[in-house]
Amino acid sequence: MATRTATAQWNGTLKEGNGTMAGGSGGFEMPFTFKSRFEGEGANPEELIGAALAGCFSMQVSASLAEAGTPVDSVRTEAKVQLRAGDEGPRIDSIALTTRGKVPDLDDAAFKQAAEEAKNGCIISRALAGVNEITVDAALEN
Amino acid sequence: MATRTATAQWNGTLKEGNGTMAGGSGGFEMPFTFKSRFEGEGANPEELIGAALAGCFSMQVSASLAEAGTPVDSVRTEAKVQLRAGDEGPRIDSIALTTRGKVPDLDDAAFKQAAEEAKNGCIISRALAGVNEITVDAALEN
Repeated sequence: MATRTATAQWNGTLKEGNGTMAGGSGGFEMPFTFKSRFEGEGANPEELIGAALAGCFSMQVSASLAEAGTPVDSVRTEAKVQLRAGDEGPRIDSIALTTRGKVPDLDDAAFKQAAEEAKNGCIISRALAGVNEITVDAALEN
Repeated sequence: MATRTATAQWNGTLKEGNGTMAGGSGGFEMPFTFKSRFEGEGANPEELIGAALAGCFSMQVSASLAEAGTPVDSVRTEAKVQLRAGDEGPRIDSIALTTRGKVPDLDDAAFKQAAEEAKNGCIISRALAGVNEITVDAALEN
């Protein structure tokens, strides 16, 4: 199957240095620093993880609901990635997904079930097995 | 510690629909489709995972070498993310890192060791415990 490529560079020391992260498809290239990662606003690897999970999850919910005969108009998902200090240094402790769907002819329980399954089964969720807890708050907003 | 936010949206069915993924810091927003994810060129969640790992890894190598008294000029890393079909659908089977360092007064063995430790210990590596194998090919290019 597919191979996807990305690159990153870091220049200098941890606190005074700076880096970039870029996608192989040309879709993005962004700077990051110690401050943007751990202290202030700005791009960082954890935000990329959140976007990857939110994207994979939203696509998976849409796929499974279409398969069940109730295709979505849209699924919108926010990911909050929580860093916490641990014995081996900082770690991603939890990712909280909040998802809202516009899906004709579906009830809220069926949407919640599709969200729960996508949270457990989507490609990026399964890759992120080292994250303590991934949660999802799902509701329709038809 | 810090909370990082990202969002994604998917519209419509799996194969005809389309989506976007965006970082909460405003650093990136990119479209993606079934084709860009599984068939052709274009952005996709796996590329974001590769960029996050390459960024975290490069920063970690730089941090540990600076701590050891040999700060880097630069560490540049490519990540190749391999999707493979599995029993539960496609999965991220492996991520191959290739890293090249410019580090004054360091020998190749010490760079390789710092790379091996960062591959095992960096925040994003530890989160990606569900990936079968992460490898690193490390060399100095002073």
